[in-house]
Amino acid sequence: MTGLIRSWVESANAPDCPFPLNNLPCGVFSTADTDPRCGVAIGDFVLDVAGLEEKGLLSLTGGPLLDVPFWNDLMEAGPEIWAALRARLTALLAEGSGDREAVTPFLVPLADVTLHMPFLVSEYTDFYAGRHHAFNVGTMFRGPENALPPNWLHIPIGYNGRASSVVVSGTDVRRPWGQLKGPDDAAPRFAPSARFDIELEMGAVVGQPSEGPVTVTEADAMIFGYVLLNDWSARDIQAWEYQPLGPFQSKATATTISPWIVTRAALEPFRTPSPAREKPLLPYLAEPGPMLYDIALEVGLTPEGGTETVISRTNYAEMYYSAAQQLAHHTTSGCAMNVGDLLGSGTISGPEKGNRGSLLELSWGGKEPFEIAGGSRSFIQDNDTLVLRGQCRGEGYTIGFGDCVGKVIPALADPYAR
Amino acid sequence: MTGLIRSWVESANAPDCPFPLNNLPCGVFSTADTDPRCGVAIGDFVLDVAGLEEKGLLSLTGGPLLDVPFWNDLMEAGPEIWAALRARLTALLAEGSGDREAVTPFLVPLADVTLHMPFLVSEYTDFYAGRHHAFNVGTMFRGPENALPPNWLHIPIGYNGRASSVVVSGTDVRRPWGQLKGPDDAAPRFAPSARFDIELEMGAVVGQPSEGPVTVTEADAMIFGYVLLNDWSARDIQAWEYQPLGPFQSKATATTISPWIVTRAALEPFRTPSPAREKPLLPYLAEPGPMLYDIALEVGLTPEGGTETVISRTNYAEMYYSAAQQLAHHTTSGCAMNVGDLLGSGTISGPEKGNRGSLLELSWGGKEPFEIAGGSRSFIQDNDTLVLRGQCRGEGYTIGFGDCVGKVIPALADPYAR
Repeated sequence: MTGLIRSWVESANAPDCPFPLNNLPCGVFSTADTDPRCGVAIGDFVLDVAGLEEKGLLSLTGGPLLDVPFWNDLMEAGPEIWAALRARLTALLAEGSGDREAVTPFLVPLADVTLHMPFLVSEYTDFYAGRHHAFNVGTMFRGPENALPPNWLHIPIGYNGRASSVVVSGTDVRRPWGQLKGPDDAAPRFAPSARFDIELEMGAVVGQPSEGPVTVTEADAMIFGYVLLNDWSARDIQAWEYQPLGPFQSKATATTISPWIVTRAALEPFRTPSPAREKPLLPYLAEPGPMLYDIALEVGLTPEGGTETVISRTNYAEMYYSAAQQLAHHTTSGCAMNVGDLLGSGTISGPEKGNRGSLLELSWGGKEPFEIAGGSRSFIQDNDTLVLRGQCRGEGYTIGFGDCVGKVIPALADPYAR
Repeated sequence: MTGLIRSWVESANAPDCPFPLNNLPCGVFSTADTDPRCGVAIGDFVLDVAGLEEKGLLSLTGGPLLDVPFWNDLMEAGPEIWAALRARLTALLAEGSGDREAVTPFLVPLADVTLHMPFLVSEYTDFYAGRHHAFNVGTMFRGPENALPPNWLHIPIGYNGRASSVVVSGTDVRRPWGQLKGPDDAAPRFAPSARFDIELEMGAVVGQPSEGPVTVTEADAMIFGYVLLNDWSARDIQAWEYQPLGPFQSKATATTISPWIVTRAALEPFRTPSPAREKPLLPYLAEPGPMLYDIALEVGLTPEGGTETVISRTNYAEMYYSAAQQLAHHTTSGCAMNVGDLLGSGTISGPEKGNRGSLLELSWGGKEPFEIAGGSRSFIQDNDTLVLRGQCRGEGYTIGFGDCVGKVIPALADPYAR
């Protein structure tokens, strides 16, 4: 594992800074004076890479790639360009660089910017690839003996989500209405969800297209980077709607992602193998090397006017299937993948109670409310703010994603009032 | 019901012509000399509406809407523009029009064109809203007493499909590989699907966006038009993968649509009510009037070098839920809908054996192979060509969608060979 790459941007060299020169995550920012544009976080600043490109300080290819308020064009340009950008930015920002004077005008304090969606989501797929989560949920719904569906240890189970639901961190999330029916209700009713929840996930951002089936190695190379992802879930809507075709409106209200895409290159030192296989996988899912990442994750819950309680701590390394395996499986049917496709990992729970990545698990279906500062929770209450955080710890440095935050605001009084 | 609107394009006046002046369906065509562009079918011709607009013969708004190889920009312009285009084209093409000389150069023989995807699919959702189909499939999987899931008579059940799977009629469909496991197999294997199938559906094309929940009336007004839709389905992949999160790779190989979008305006005379409700629907799903359409549908199967057998005849009026109800339900959670979203109706079967809209039902899970000219089928064989057709019968005229055709070509010998 390499150590900190020192930058002349001093704040980037602090061991706890989430944005050292080793990171260089990709986002889209605006200020009071500028429209949304591509930027890269470094220390306490955003580097205006769109401006750098315009000034001729990047010169990656013949045409501009960063003059748009999303990273899709850069992703589409391919892995050689991704590497060239990283190398060039590293050279420009490294301690001792001769370009300090030229680059300094393009540093904008993070405190002064608004962050936007870092990329245009083409399609969104959500998986169910965490062993502990699948076991917990299965136990609640079907008992411990039938907890894991028979296919679970063979297939990275996934379903297509709704791309239009994906929003950037900081966007308020309105509690949804939906069809609900409790097990003892005679008939369903239409009402606001009373069991609104989070799912702590990582999202893999597909940066290259494919047409036919791809191997796990090829899939890994197609992934541009990773974001934190909160798959907001209305459990009461889900319970009534999900048979036989899977979750639909229960997952369509919002999907919040972190403002920064941390590139695969930045995560490289933190690769870690997936856990031992309980049953052999079919050869098309074989991993040529470690395909997960050691990313420490936590969830904080803050009631309106209250203080934050960290309600879960876990790690992306707990997943049973990697994003590369999920993506390879996704292509088996010949399904075309496109630049900007987003794959949610599935909820990342760990083996202990304090590692659970959803309130459904933390409160065991609402039967065991858990303590927070000044109260308790089974599911999310109005005006609660939920935050996901992730970090990789290198030698003398940290890789961060920026907070992935959403505040749940009350349901509309009448969803059809105009 | 209005009768034929006569055109000076004589071929459009034949009672069996699918493209009379009453229709004016929207497509994208190219010729040996022109790149793909927007066109409208009339009689034996495509009217080059992009050319008409360029020539100043349409003048719908300040800016051009049809200078792109898709109808999304026109759809986005809104219902008033949709109506204005229809009125203007009707005036230009009507018998006795003074514009015949100006318009004639923009008529291209249908025989000389290649048809392309008529619109850019934003996201694709597939429903399961045919009562007969749900009952048939449920009976096969769970027995007649548990055939309909408990939610089925309350919710237009749907799942998110894969927009990248949608292709235009005429595109070959390659038999997919996938994970398969028969009920008696000890372990799954990776192999070409042996139970590849069609689903006869209609697709509703969303032409206006929404942010919050919309009523059924509002939803109906958002629909620009309808296409024929074949939801190709690998039944063996589906059976093994679909629990608990629904169909995924089994439905991702291809989804074929007809080359022409028949507008809601053209279908207006054929509105028909949905069937009697077996259980009362929640008020948000109430229909203010007839929301289905009387569209006669059929499926033809032609083996390589053989002759076509019509294997199914049914009607869109057999659906239990309308597209407007499906779209309204789709928005309940606050799910944003966008121009170019496509909603598959679900398989349209009728009450009799000859009305079944999938081979799964026609062969009762493969147990009762059915006869075709020169042979029999349980599922699709390599090099079979499947065609869906739809028509509305007015007084002295017919509304058609163009054939929705796909030939199934053999699976790759090795999907990972490069």
